[in-house]
Formats: sequence, C-alpha cells, structure tokens
Amino acid sequence: MSGNQKLWGGRFAESTSALVEKFSESVSFDARLYRQDIAGSQAHARMLAKVGVLSETDAQAIVQGLDAIRDSIESGRFEWSEQLEDVHMNIEARLTEAIGEAGKRLHTGRSRNDQVATDLRLYVRDTIDALLPLIDRVTEGLLNLAEREADTVMPGFTHLQIAQPVSFGHHMLAWREQMLRDRSRLVDCRKRLNLLPLGAAALAGTVYPIDRHYVAELLGFDGVTENSLDTVSDRDFAIEFCSVASLIMVHLSRWSEELILWATPMFGFVNLPDRFCTGSSIMPQKKNPDVPELVRGKTGRVIGNLQALLVLMKGQPLAYNRDNQEDKPPLFDSVDTVRACLQVYAEMIPAIEVRRENCRAAAAKGYSTATDLADYLVRKGLPFRDAHHVVGSTVAYAQKKGCDIAELDLAELQAQSKLIEADVYACISLEGSLAARNHYGATAPTQVRAAIARARQRPS
Amino acid sequence: MSGNQKLWGGRFAESTSALVEKFSESVSFDARLYRQDIAGSQAHARMLAKVGVLSETDAQAIVQGLDAIRDSIESGRFEWSEQLEDVHMNIEARLTEAIGEAGKRLHTGRSRNDQVATDLRLYVRDTIDALLPLIDRVTEGLLNLAEREADTVMPGFTHLQIAQPVSFGHHMLAWREQMLRDRSRLVDCRKRLNLLPLGAAALAGTVYPIDRHYVAELLGFDGVTENSLDTVSDRDFAIEFCSVASLIMVHLSRWSEELILWATPMFGFVNLPDRFCTGSSIMPQKKNPDVPELVRGKTGRVIGNLQALLVLMKGQPLAYNRDNQEDKPPLFDSVDTVRACLQVYAEMIPAIEVRRENCRAAAAKGYSTATDLADYLVRKGLPFRDAHHVVGSTVAYAQKKGCDIAELDLAELQAQSKLIEADVYACISLEGSLAARNHYGATAPTQVRAAIARARQRPS
Amino acid sequence: MSGNQKLWGGRFAESTSALVEKFSESVSFDARLYRQDIAGSQAHARMLAKVGVLSETDAQAIVQGLDAIRDSIESGRFEWSEQLEDVHMNIEARLTEAIGEAGKRLHTGRSRNDQVATDLRLYVRDTIDALLPLIDRVTEGLLNLAEREADTVMPGFTHLQIAQPVSFGHHMLAWREQMLRDRSRLVDCRKRLNLLPLGAAALAGTVYPIDRHYVAELLGFDGVTENSLDTVSDRDFAIEFCSVASLIMVHLSRWSEELILWATPMFGFVNLPDRFCTGSSIMPQKKNPDVPELVRGKTGRVIGNLQALLVLMKGQPLAYNRDNQEDKPPLFDSVDTVRACLQVYAEMIPAIEVRRENCRAAAAKGYSTATDLADYLVRKGLPFRDAHHVVGSTVAYAQKKGCDIAELDLAELQAQSKLIEADVYACISLEGSLAARNHYGATAPTQVRAAIARARQRPS
Amino acid sequence: MSGNQKLWGGRFAESTSALVEKFSESVSFDARLYRQDIAGSQAHARMLAKVGVLSETDAQAIVQGLDAIRDSIESGRFEWSEQLEDVHMNIEARLTEAIGEAGKRLHTGRSRNDQVATDLRLYVRDTIDALLPLIDRVTEGLLNLAEREADTVMPGFTHLQIAQPVSFGHHMLAWREQMLRDRSRLVDCRKRLNLLPLGAAALAGTVYPIDRHYVAELLGFDGVTENSLDTVSDRDFAIEFCSVASLIMVHLSRWSEELILWATPMFGFVNLPDRFCTGSSIMPQKKNPDVPELVRGKTGRVIGNLQALLVLMKGQPLAYNRDNQEDKPPLFDSVDTVRACLQVYAEMIPAIEVRRENCRAAAAKGYSTATDLADYLVRKGLPFRDAHHVVGSTVAYAQKKGCDIAELDLAELQAQSKLIEADVYACISLEGSLAARNHYGATAPTQVRAAIARARQRPS
Repeated sequence: MSGNQKLWGGRFAESTSALVEKFSESVSFDARLYRQDIAGSQAHARMLAKVGVLSETDAQAIVQGLDAIRDSIESGRFEWSEQLEDVHMNIEARLTEAIGEAGKRLHTGRSRNDQVATDLRLYVRDTIDALLPLIDRVTEGLLNLAEREADTVMPGFTHLQIAQPVSFGHHMLAWREQMLRDRSRLVDCRKRLNLLPLGAAALAGTVYPIDRHYVAELLGFDGVTENSLDTVSDRDFAIEFCSVASLIMVHLSRWSEELILWATPMFGFVNLPDRFCTGSSIMPQKKNPDVPELVRGKTGRVIGNLQALLVLMKGQPLAYNRDNQEDKPPLFDSVDTVRACLQVYAEMIPAIEVRRENCRAAAAKGYSTATDLADYLVRKGLPFRDAHHVVGSTVAYAQKKGCDIAELDLAELQAQSKLIEADVYACISLEGSLAARNHYGATAPTQVRAAIARARQRPS
Repeated sequence: MSGNQKLWGGRFAESTSALVEKFSESVSFDARLYRQDIAGSQAHARMLAKVGVLSETDAQAIVQGLDAIRDSIESGRFEWSEQLEDVHMNIEARLTEAIGEAGKRLHTGRSRNDQVATDLRLYVRDTIDALLPLIDRVTEGLLNLAEREADTVMPGFTHLQIAQPVSFGHHMLAWREQMLRDRSRLVDCRKRLNLLPLGAAALAGTVYPIDRHYVAELLGFDGVTENSLDTVSDRDFAIEFCSVASLIMVHLSRWSEELILWATPMFGFVNLPDRFCTGSSIMPQKKNPDVPELVRGKTGRVIGNLQALLVLMKGQPLAYNRDNQEDKPPLFDSVDTVRACLQVYAEMIPAIEVRRENCRAAAAKGYSTATDLADYLVRKGLPFRDAHHVVGSTVAYAQKKGCDIAELDLAELQAQSKLIEADVYACISLEGSLAARNHYGATAPTQVRAAIARARQRPS
Repeated sequence: MSGNQKLWGGRFAESTSALVEKFSESVSFDARLYRQDIAGSQAHARMLAKVGVLSETDAQAIVQGLDAIRDSIESGRFEWSEQLEDVHMNIEARLTEAIGEAGKRLHTGRSRNDQVATDLRLYVRDTIDALLPLIDRVTEGLLNLAEREADTVMPGFTHLQIAQPVSFGHHMLAWREQMLRDRSRLVDCRKRLNLLPLGAAALAGTVYPIDRHYVAELLGFDGVTENSLDTVSDRDFAIEFCSVASLIMVHLSRWSEELILWATPMFGFVNLPDRFCTGSSIMPQKKNPDVPELVRGKTGRVIGNLQALLVLMKGQPLAYNRDNQEDKPPLFDSVDTVRACLQVYAEMIPAIEVRRENCRAAAAKGYSTATDLADYLVRKGLPFRDAHHVVGSTVAYAQKKGCDIAELDLAELQAQSKLIEADVYACISLEGSLAARNHYGATAPTQVRAAIARARQRPS
Repeated sequence: MSGNQKLWGGRFAESTSALVEKFSESVSFDARLYRQDIAGSQAHARMLAKVGVLSETDAQAIVQGLDAIRDSIESGRFEWSEQLEDVHMNIEARLTEAIGEAGKRLHTGRSRNDQVATDLRLYVRDTIDALLPLIDRVTEGLLNLAEREADTVMPGFTHLQIAQPVSFGHHMLAWREQMLRDRSRLVDCRKRLNLLPLGAAALAGTVYPIDRHYVAELLGFDGVTENSLDTVSDRDFAIEFCSVASLIMVHLSRWSEELILWATPMFGFVNLPDRFCTGSSIMPQKKNPDVPELVRGKTGRVIGNLQALLVLMKGQPLAYNRDNQEDKPPLFDSVDTVRACLQVYAEMIPAIEVRRENCRAAAAKGYSTATDLADYLVRKGLPFRDAHHVVGSTVAYAQKKGCDIAELDLAELQAQSKLIEADVYACISLEGSLAARNHYGATAPTQVRAAIARARQRPS
C-alpha cells in the first residue's frame, strides 16, 4: 500500500479505511449548498484578482468554469463522488479537471473552515428570503379570512371551556399576530448573520493580502466578521434559525390543534375541503384532517433539531471541530419542514369553510354571556361580588330549564334581581356581548375591522 | 359541606380537594413576581381613575396600599398563603384587608389572564435589563485580558490538534464576539416583548372604557398588544428569552471546556486563582476548576428549560389554558442560572493567569508553522501542492530528529528544497507566523490591537 | 487572610470566594438525600468494623450518632450550613461534633464520589419503591372504572374523527396498558441500578481491605458494581429513571388531553367533580378542568429534565467531574412531578362521572357503523371494494336526510343494495357493532370483561 | 374532475391536492419497512386461511406473490410510487396487479393502523437483533485491549486534574461496563415490544374470527397485545429504543472526548492509526481524529430524535392520529446513526495504539500518589487530617524543587515527617500505588485481570 492519495495525504502512511470514508463523507447531504458554494468561490476569485494574487485570466476562467458546473448540477449531469468527501471538494476537483491549473489556485487564502461557514450563512440567508414571502401569503390569507368572518360569532375558550363570545375574525387575527412575531424574529436573525466569514481561513486568517470587505460587497453581506477564531467555530446563526423555526412550528401546531378540534362532528366549526383530507380504506364514512395532523406531528422534529444543534455545540473548544459537520442534517431538515408546512397552510387557509351556524350555536350554549350580565348589574349599582353571585344563580336556573340566560323572559330574570330591565337583552345577546368589547385589541367587530385596516396599512 | 368558599366558588357544590389545592397552587414560585404585579396594578388603578371608572380617592388608596404591601414583602413581613393560590390573589386579598372596598374595585376591567401576562413581560424585561450590565462586565473583562495578552503566542487548535499559532488575546476576543451576539439577541427579545398585555382581560377585552395606551406609558411599554386572544395565550417572549439563555450557556460551556483543558498539567496554559477552585478531602494535591465545571454542567439545565417551554406550548388551543402556569419554573430557573453563571465569569475573567511560557512551548511543539513554510515556498514559486509535499517531508524529518522545523539549520532545510533561504526563519518562527496573518479579523497582534481599539470606540 | 480553612484547604493560599461558595454549594437541594446518606454511612462503618479498620466501639458510636442526626433532621432541628457545601459534609461535621474522633474515621476508605453515587442509587430505588404502589392505585382505579363502564358505548376516534363504536371500559383499559408498561420499565430500571457503588472511592478503589459485598448486603443491593472508574462517573440510572418518568408523563398528558376534550360542552362525555376543578373570578359560569391541564403542562418539565441530564453527561471524560452535581435538580424535579401527578390521578380516576347518554349520542351521529354495513355486504357476497362504494353512497343519502344509517328504513337501505335484509339492523346498531368485535384484545363488552378478569388474576 | 380516485375516495368530491399528496406521502422513508411488511402480510394471510376466511389457494398465491415482490425490491426492480402513499399500499397494489382478486382479499380483518404497528415492532426487533452482535464486538475489543494494557499506568482523572494512577486496562473496562448496561437495556426493550399488534384493526378489533395467537407464533412474537385502542396508538417501544440509543451515544461521546484529548500532543496517550484520521489540505502537519469527533457530534442528533418522539406523542388523544407518521424519520435516523457509530468503534478499538511511556510520564507529574503518602502516614499512626497536612506541605516542597514526591530522597521526606521510612517508596511509586488498590472493582492489575477472567466466563 502506497500511502494516502487524498489531497491532504502527504504525511499519511495508509489510506483512509473504506468504512471511515463512508462514515465521514458529507456530500450526500451538503451537495444542496452548491449554489452558495459557487457564489462564494466566484467572489473569492474576483477578490484575489483585484488584490493581485490571481491573474485576471485565471479569475475569469474560474468564474466561468463555476458557472458551467452550476449548470451541470442543475441539469442533473453532475456526478457527485463520496470519495471527494464534500460539496467543496467535489466542485473544486471538477473545476480543476475543467480549467486546469487555475482551478488549483482558487483555494489560495482560504480554507474549508471559512468556506463552509460562508456557504452556510448564505444558505440560511437564502432560506429566510424564501420564507418571508411564504409567511406573507399566510398572514395575508388570515387577514382576508378575518375580514370575511369579522361578524361571525364563535365561543372564545379558556381552559377549553366556553368563556365569552368572540369574533371568528378576531381569532384569525390572533393567529396572524403569532406569525408576525415569527417574521420579525427571522428578520433579526438575518440581520445578525449577514456578515462575511471568508478570510478567517483555517482559524487564524491568512498571509495573503486579501480584501474581505470587497468579497462582502460582492456577496451582499452587510460587513465582515470580526474574529477569525470565532468565525470558523460559530454556528449561532443556525441555532438561532432553528429556534425561530421551532416557534413557527409551535404556532402552526396550535392552529392545527384548533382545526382538528373544529373539524370534529362535536365542534363542527369548520369544514376543510376534501383536497386537504384523506379517507380510510376501511371506514367508508371517514374524512380525516391529515394536513393539520401532520403539521402538528412535524413540530416534534423541528424542536428536536434545535436540541440536536444545542447539544452539538455544547462544550466545544475553539476553533473548528469535525463535530460541526453534523450541523447540517438538523438544519436542513428544519428548513424543509418549515417551508413545507408554511406552503400547505398558505394554500389551505383561504379554503377554510366556516360553519357559522355551528359556531353561533356553540356560543349560545355555554352561558358565554354570563360575564355580561354581571357587568350589567354592576352598571346598575351592584358590587361585582354580589353580581357574580346573582349570575351564578341565574345560570343554575337556566341550566335546570335547559336554555341559555338570554332565552329567559324578563320576569324570570327579574326574579333573580330587581335591577334587571328590558335593556338587559342588548347586553346578554351574543352580538351585544361582542360589540361591547370595544377597545384597542378587543373582539368587537368594529375593532376587528379597525385592526384589519391598520394591518393593511403597515407593511408586515 | 357548604360549597366552595373561593372567590370564584359561586356555582361550585363542593370545596377544592386539599390535594388539588396543593397541586395547583403557584404562589410558592410566582411570589417572586410581586414587584411587577404591584407596578402593574398601580398603573391599572391610575388608568381606571383617569377614565372615570374609579374615583381618584380609591385609586390613591390602592396605589398607597400596594406600596405598603411591597414594603412588607421586601422586609419579609408578608405572609404568603397557598390557599390564595397565586401572587395576584395574595396581594389583592391583603390589599382589600388593608383598604377595604376600594381594593375590591381594583380588578375591574382586567383578569388574571392579562395580569399574569403583564407581570411576566415586565419580569423578563427587568431580567434583561439586569443581565445587560453583567454581560458588559464580562465583555469588558475579556477586552482587558485580550489587551494584556495580545502578544502572547499560543497554539490555535482545529480538531483539538495544533493548527497554527494564535494570539491569546485574539482567542479572548473570539469569546467576546460570542457574547456580543448574545447581547444583541437579548436586546431584540426586549424590543419584541415590550408591549402591554393589560386590557385583553380574560380573552376578549373588557366592556369598560379602558385606556391601554396610558397604562403602557406608565409602565414603560413601547405600545400595546394588538389582539386580546393572542395576548393571553402568548408565551413567545419567555421561549425567546430561554433560547437566548441557552445560547449564552452554550458559549459559557465552550469557555469552560477550554479553561478546564488549559488548567490541566498537560496543557498548563492558565492558572485559576485558588478562590475559584476547590480541593479534595482525600487527595491532598488536588486543585479543581469547579467554577467552569459547574457552568458547563448547568448548561444542560438551561437547554432543558427551553425544551420544557416548547413542549408546554406545542398544540395548545387558544386562549389561556392552565398548562401555562407551568411556564414559570423553567423560566425562573434559566434566569437564575444564567445570572449566576455570568456573575462568576465576570468575577473570574480578570483573575485568569496566563502561563505564557507554557502557551509558547506548546505552540512550538506541534509544527504549527508548517503552513507558513508551505506559503513561503509558494512565494518562492512552487505550486502549493508541491510545497505541501515538501513540508510534509520536512515535518517527518524534524519529527525523527525530535525538534521543531524552526530548529533545523539552514543546510537541513535546503536539503528539503533549494528554494529555502535564510529569510525563511522570519516566516516559520512563531512570531513571524503570527505577524503575517495581518488583515481585518486575523490574529496578528497588530490586528488584535486594532480590534480592541474598535471595540473601545463602538458602544456594545 | 491566611489560606483556606476548608477540610481540603491544605495547599490553598486563599479562601474560596464568597460568590463561588454560594455558586457551588449543593446542600440547598441535596439535603433531601439525608436518609440515604446516613444509611450508607452506617453500613460503611459496620463494614469497616467487620474488617478491622474501625473498632467496634467507634462503629457503634457512629451508627448511633447518625441515628440521632436523622432524628434531628426529621424533627426540623438540624441546621444546614451552606459553607459545609453538601449533605455529606453537613452530616459528617455534625457527627464529629457529636461523637468526636470516631466521626473523623468514618470517611476511611471512601470518598464523596462513591458516597454520592451510593446515596443517589438508594434514592432512586426508594423513589421507585414509592411509585409502584401509586401506579397500582391508578391501574386499579382504571380497572374498576372499566368494569363499571364496560357496556357504555362511546365513539372511538381516529384522527379525532368518529371511527367506530367502542366500549368506554375498553378505552380505560387502553390507558391501563400504557401504565403497566411504565411499571415494567420502572422495575427494570430498579433491577439495573441495584448494585453497590461504595468502594470505588475517589475513582480507583482504596488501599483498605474493604468488604464491598458485605456493605451491599446491609443496604439491600443485589451485588456490587464492577469497575471503580465507571462507578463514580455513571449516572445512567438517573437518566433511565428520567426516561421512564418522561413516558409516564407522556401517557398522563394523553389522558389529560382526552379528559379536557371530554369535559367540554361540545363533547360532554364526562363530568369531573367540582373538587378537581376551579372557577373564574370573572366569568360566573366557568368550571375548569385544572388538574388535567396542569398535568399536561407539567409534561414539558419532565421531558426537559431528561434532556438536561443527557446534555449534562454528553462528552464528559472519566471519572468524576463537578458537572455531575447538576444531576440532582432535574432528577428531583422529575421525581416530585411524577409523584404528584400520579397522586392526583389516583384520586381523580374513581371520581370520573361518565355521561353515558352523551357518549352514546355522539357515537350515533358520526356514521360510526358504516364499516359494519360494508362488512355485512361482504358477508352477503359483495367484494369489499364494491361494498365500500355502496356504503359511501348510503352515508351520503343519510347525511342528506340528516340521520344515521341505522335510522333508514329497510326500503331505503334496499334501494342502495338488494343484498340488504332485515338482519342488517343487528349489525349496524351501536350495540351490534360493538358486540361483533369479539376476539382477544377487541372492544366487545364480553372481551372487555374477559380482559378485566385476566387483569384481576395476574399480579401487575 | 370527477371525485377522488384513491382506494378510500368514495365519499370525496375532489382529488387530493398535489401539494398535499406530496406533503403527506411516507413511502420515501417507510419503504425500508418492506421486509417486515411482507412478513406480516404473509403471516396474516396464513392465519386467514387457517380460520377459513381465505381459501388455501388464495393464501398460497399471496405468500408467493409477496415473496416475488420482496425479491424485486431487493434486486432494485420495484418501482415505488408516491401516489400510493406508503409502503403498505405500494406493496398491496403491486400484489393485486400480480395475482389478481386474491390480492384484494389480503386486507380483510386488518387496517393500516395495526399493520404499521406490526411492521414497526418487527423493525425495531430486527434492529436490536442486529445491534447486539455489534455491541458484542465492541465489548470484546475493549476486553482484549484491557488485557493488553492491564499493567499500563496512566493518570486517573477527576475534574480532569490528575488524581491517582490507574491501569489503562481498568479504564477500558469502565467503558465496557457502560456498554454492557446499554446491551441490557436493549434486551429489556426487545422483551417489552415483542407482542403482536395485528388484530387491533383500525382501533376496535375486527368482526372476522381471527386467531391472533397463531399470527404471533408465525412471526416470533412472545404473545399478543392486550388492547386494540392502545395497540394502534402506542409508540412506547420506539421511544424506549430511542432512549436506549441516546444513552449509547452519550457513552460513545464520552469515549470520543477522551480519545480526542488523548490524541493531542499535550496528552499524547494514544495514537489512532492513519486510516481513522484525515489531514488538512492547508496545514501539512495535521492529523485529525475525525472518527471520535463525528461520533461526538452525532450524539446531538440521536438525543434530538428522542425529544422529537416525546414531543410527537405528548397530548395525543386515542387512537391513531396522522401525527404518528412522523415517528419514522427520527427513529430511522437514530437506528442508522447508532449502527454506524458502533461499527466504526468496533473497527477502531482494536487498532488503538497506547503510548505507554507518555501515559506513565503524565502519571508521574501530577503528584498522583499523594494520597498514598497520606495513607502511609495513617498506617504509621498519624490521624488522616494531620497526614493530609503533611502531604500538602510535601507536595509544595516537591513542586518548588520541580520533581515528583517519589523523586525526593529519604532525608527530604523525613524532614516532612519523622514517621517516613525507606519502605515509603514502595507506596508512593506508581506501581506501588496501583497494586495497593486491590479489591473487587479496584484498579490493581491483579483485579483488572480478575475482572477480565470473570468477563470471559459470563456471557454478555
């Protein structure tokens, strides 16, 4: 056996074990970084030419050679090789094959450590740039649905017990608020990561007179990272992205839980169109809300990926350790999962059919305006504690009779308290209750419409 | 048994089981929110007076009564009662005891749901405001240490194998960069949470003509939350804080791992003063780096707390569910842990003694300037691949002789390559290698000093 | 200040910093191990006397002195000191105070490293021994409830859509199976941990002629651990316990989710007695299922604790590291949480009131016997695919008419398929459907009773 | 478009959306269950024939048709279709294509819910059966290495500070103990899962007269599951497997951490053969311990997968929900990762080269026999506390002189205490210290050999 044939094999007396080669390759999953890897290499080559380390001819050959490689990858002609370990080596080896010596000069003044850091930051940035419009479709869908259902009365729940009537539109705007925070977190994450790592080289910088700011400019970074050791060892941006992704999924899982409940025959608040559901090969009557169930199920995965990355980085000494190769599978899985879930929600939200009569009927049966009766009595002068007591007894009376308090006649109500007059019905009707919660952020349809108007004005 | 004596017990036929009372109380841990709870109640009372729901006299009685309660809590005289369930009921009950009827009117137009949301946001805000100066002490300590050790040569590691010489000061600045990102995330988290929840009431808003913007102003919020359902169900801010806390701990755990390694006799790079260490009751020679070990150990806890909160919220329907009471123990534990760890690090960093001779000796033994020899040969015209090969063989020769390549004499080096001349020693000395990495972000002492100067100018 | 006054302070030039002392103490949480610590020390002393390292008199003094300390702790008279760091030093220092020189000889041939490992194994063993009877109360409660409701028809769900009728008792037995697996895992965990650590000393064993098997016998261990380095560094048993605890909580969270759903007015399947519920200070009609909500909420915490321990141990070199002090808070929190949740469930299960008429009504409305009609047609000779089609159309017809398929008259059914005869009603009635699933493990009341009978015979 | 063409599409008015079809397919990852799916179907068919539901001819056609399908899958000729959703439908559809009507009868008396539960239990069982021999190779390798290095002295560490000398072989046996516990947990997990789910059907059992015990026997199960609702909703076995896998990875990550440390020039305790390492394309001197780094890095992933499954199941109502489709990716990833890591460790352990002289030299420099000197003085009559003090001062003296205490001459030692005589050197030499820890489980080479002998006798 004649030593190790790898590029780095000079001091090695034996070849890498086949098992180890298989164990340690990453190209099977990092190939998806090809676009970022190529963009980074092209910018690096241009800079090397600018500062005189590379000839203009070489730089041009590199840039064009890489363009060709990108095309061959995108058309499916590129052959990835596990023996070439990773996306970087695969592309560089092919480049040298294609353009000769100039290809070998591309790696001057950099290392795979800062190269992969660059690829990953570009990748997360591209991901965020792709997610933002998806989120906008989702929030826009919610806004439209909120508008359509601003006047729809449904029971608001606390402890999943009927609490007070709310507007279905108001509920949709609650979902929207969650997603707007997610959006804002993505924007912050993007801002923080948008600094160029290239130039950190292996860990200490390089002896070549590189111009990092020029590369940053070419790649659309807002600036360059401050410290080479930190740069090659930092995966904060991946963790921060996975944190944000986890919150997105927590929110989508909450919507899913509600849709699943609302689609049961017991609630019957919504109908999901058939194209979002599946049936059973056994039970002919079944129509299952698969999409929200799957989204709820996928939440665990995205949360698990966040944990995987935190565990990965915990206790790692500086600078780069091979452990970090393992940052990619969890990150990529979270990216794919969140994107897919946002896509199906973006498509499904506008198609949600609200069964208004069922929503209203449910609101009418849980004594949801009991608080309004108490507030009415307070306005008539009763202390709240006493009012609470009167209403308790009124609810008990109505329960025995099997009706809502708004269905009692005036005499029956007055038997509970002399303070009650005919104007009470305006308060304890579902619409009266709803309309009375009429301040910034509350559920009155007027406020819901005001919120929608504000939303349409402020850019997300 | 004559029914349930609780404030809310009107419709209840039996008392809460003692076991359940014990199981469901929260005052044993939420009492720490007393200061935020009181501030929130005072602002609420002032607003109720402003809009005419409460008399000025009542409002004043409430404000003063709450001041007195805060004093009694802080002086340890307040008696907390588990039967009063939580911090809110404990304080309100005492207030009513103290000032009578006015106390009962305080809860007008709000609910515990928006009250606890307000308390928690204020608490996390106060926490962040307390952590920022601590972080500043840590980063300032690192800056000073970096300045002191800007010229200290140590081996830079990748894969924990010696890679290239770096400046000890540069390494400290890498730590500092990590913490600056943490700081920036805390600031973003604060910005996002600083909106007033009060007014959401139970879930739908209230029928009283409240002025939420006035309350926001009184409590230093930047604005008010947009949607009442979202407001009482949202714990994003707690999760976001716990995410940031997890990253802080991941960073501190990395520093700790390095300090533990550096304090072994094998590395010997640093000495931690005795006051940060403990000994062994059995082994008289032991001096253990307990502080970094404990910090590294506490990392799991903070990561686990983040997981706890994500699991807590996953799949929860709107609006408030009692599950949310469980948001506090993990949040509080992360707050306490992060604060304590930052405190000990703030105190320990300035006391780290660098054993410069050991750092230098280690750098001299791992052929850390082999790359510089290769770069030298490249500058002399050799293609990098060939240079890499020559250096591989030179390292092998030196290894056999048992010395560093910089300790070979010129004849020995020239036997490896005719291109080598006397000027090689400037390149392959530790100082030469260090000084040559001389660009923005790299490890040359000049650059380290420039980075320190920039840091002193920009406010953190 | 003249050096460190600690027991181990010989080689230390300065005292431990007050901040560090506070940061590193553990007695505030490990004091709860006092009983195990004392039992371990007593057995150790007896063994030292047996092998002649300690005099009989000293051993007796130690055993009696420790008995007295246990009494003083249990009567609340013991004063714990943070400066004495941990439970071990607190007890040992007090012992020496009380009995003099003999107390100092107790620590011969052991170290805090094997001492705490012993305490913790005993503690987890004691915990398991306390949880098993609680689990038995829970499973016994489920068995009784299953018996009471064996004939109660409720809708069985898949995808939370109505699938097929099941027996309420059958559902309770499903819960019971989950908990029986948990029980079996606890028993396995106990078996694996029940080996004596003492004798591993600091990490390498001791020079004294100790008899580990005798100590094991005294403490009820099944044997002794095999390897001293492994012994002081092993926390597998704590992690395994926390894994089992997580599954217990996952199961309880599933029961809780169902109870919360079933207690809504929309489902109305069960009533939880008032003593397990709370009301609202605002909404007079509310009755909230707090216990299941809190149990569901506490699940996150126990899962987070498992994560904390896994992160804690990941990547730790042998043997003992101070990180391990952090194993206790998560472990203790899981122990407390699981115990409390099992207690409230043990008390609540027998009190669950099933609203049989609502269960039955729900089962009757989701076309839950559609599968039975298809099976009927198959038995009459139709291929299943064709039968599925016929039933699909029958369901559609009934849906349009607004009734269940069992409410269609024979002529209407025969219009769907000529194969249908009068005997169909026995198949598509709820009771007929239920009774027909009549094999081992299926839901027919006969099978439910057979399962109960088997359960009563086999010891859990 | 005229309705949904799916097998279950009878009552559906529109086709599944293409996006949803893509979103909800599982065949891209569950195809790996083909072997278990086929075995389960063959046993089901045989049973249906035995009880008379299927003709013998049909059963034979099914069994043979499935054999052919397995062959076509294994030879790569099978074409998987995403539109057929999952592994079950792909195989069933192909079977019907191949053998006609009989294929359609296979699904009688079962559902995909109990089918996938059966496949998964078989899969985890097969996985465990494949992991056990791998674990045996690892523990056998450790045993051999322990034997080879039983007499090799190395420093034992606590707090990563040098504590006492230990045998390298003893350290390897510590690793082995960890893995033996993992093995025992796998065996318990296998025992618990080895019950047949088939017969639970969709959730309630089936109306056909099935013989579940016969199917169990055919498939090598120890019995049948007790409750149909539990059976289709239970994923405990997957979670338990992932818990055990997490502990395996925690152990491997600890070994990896140690190997990485030991392979640094500062420790220099071991050499990993070149075939397990990689170099750097930039730094010609580098040889990196990639295998242990990657194993350590992969730990996060396996821990994250466990968390994913716990989150997935938390709060799920009975019986089957579509969420559960998401159990597979985390489970499969843990299976693959653990298997790959065990494989590389099985191959690497026998190849670890111990650098005995470096181990010995390190042990000699950290005052590792200080405890032995104290014990010596105790045997000469000094109280331990005083002995501890004397040794502290002796260590200080030796430190000043720059040598180990065993290198002091007798006069120097006697200056510390008159009790010291010439026999002290036997105690404070590395070999003397090692040999003196001579009891069950301790580090004396005699004990290490005894432990190896015991290990060779007991089957793992």
